[in-house]
Amino acid sequence: MKTHTEYLVFETRNRTEFLNITDKVETAVEKSGVKEGLILVNPMHITAAVYVNDAESGLIEDFKEWLEELAPAKQGYKHHQTGEDNADAHIKRTLMGHQVTMAITNGKLDLGPWEQIYYAEFDGQRRKRVVLKIIGE
Amino acid sequence: MKTHTEYLVFETRNRTEFLNITDKVETAVEKSGVKEGLILVNPMHITAAVYVNDAESGLIEDFKEWLEELAPAKQGYKHHQTGEDNADAHIKRTLMGHQVTMAITNGKLDLGPWEQIYYAEFDGQRRKRVVLKIIGE
Amino acid sequence: MKTHTEYLVFETRNRTEFLNITDKVETAVEKSGVKEGLILVNPMHITAAVYVNDAESGLIEDFKEWLEELAPAKQGYKHHQTGEDNADAHIKRTLMGHQVTMAITNGKLDLGPWEQIYYAEFDGQRRKRVVLKIIGE
Repeated sequence: MKTHTEYLVFETRNRTEFLNITDKVETAVEKSGVKEGLILVNPMHITAAVYVNDAESGLIEDFKEWLEELAPAKQGYKHHQTGEDNADAHIKRTLMGHQVTMAITNGKLDLGPWEQIYYAEFDGQRRKRVVLKIIGE
Repeated sequence: MKTHTEYLVFETRNRTEFLNITDKVETAVEKSGVKEGLILVNPMHITAAVYVNDAESGLIEDFKEWLEELAPAKQGYKHHQTGEDNADAHIKRTLMGHQVTMAITNGKLDLGPWEQIYYAEFDGQRRKRVVLKIIGE
Repeated sequence: MKTHTEYLVFETRNRTEFLNITDKVETAVEKSGVKEGLILVNPMHITAAVYVNDAESGLIEDFKEWLEELAPAKQGYKHHQTGEDNADAHIKRTLMGHQVTMAITNGKLDLGPWEQIYYAEFDGQRRKRVVLKIIGE
């Protein structure tokens, strides 16, 4: 069996940003030499999500609006008594989905026609990492 | 190590449908010959969820009602400016959970007493696939 | 390749309880002897979540309050017609996240600076299990 580990680094310009990382994940799969296996895509910070959905800018705006309704940036979170101001970001990442594991088949990401892998940042403007862990053969 | 790949195909009669796929997943595990390992169950379309919960019809109705409250089918989503009408389905799948990875132990799904694997379709009436990827030994 | 299976058992004093299980998961990784691979942490009961987030008590209170708003303990769930009273617990576990898969690198959990693994119980006061499944080399 083979394993391969890689770290993607993001430092977004805005507090909230949605980045399509499908190409970067695909590149790691090719580099690994794994033909059949699994890849875990896991943000190493707890105010960012990795999820799979559509690369359509309108839908991304819909997601942002919906997240703001269900987990608003506001005063009054108990987490803010520590001096933090990002409780909403922790909750938004939870709503959006923490991480994904994808199949590798014939040396490629085994994606459906519209599946794209996104990194969703909810407390950016600083350096953050995503671990890619591949195992297979 | 061994790997095994299989695709389940669903074409539901209704726009929204919840299907218990535990038996189909179990059958794939048996077919793979893997005794110890992991199985990823990943819908390849972005308006369907795969999740684990109870095979109880009342609870499934509760989930549907709750999803409709939190992510209603309505006009006004920006995604609909592309001609689509299923933004709510993208969001409902996100709420319900994208995918699951389950343990294989002694050649069987290592399930708790009530764990059942469901495919939740939110924009059906067309052909959709779920990839099953097994790795182990 | 190597695999390792372990079961954690929890019986919480309260109906709702959030337990940091990072140390227990790390111990299983060490015991497995796996240097590079994946670990699945999956609650075997459907009214509990396993998620990754901050070990900060204020944030945990924020999560509890937010879960109660979005999936309140109340009368009227159809699931309760079976005699059950825990439909909210099934929904809360879905919101919080079902399970996590983490990377193992150099024989250790490959965690970011704030990533901690939690078991969130929403219908406790009875014996429940979490399966840890490790595969790698």
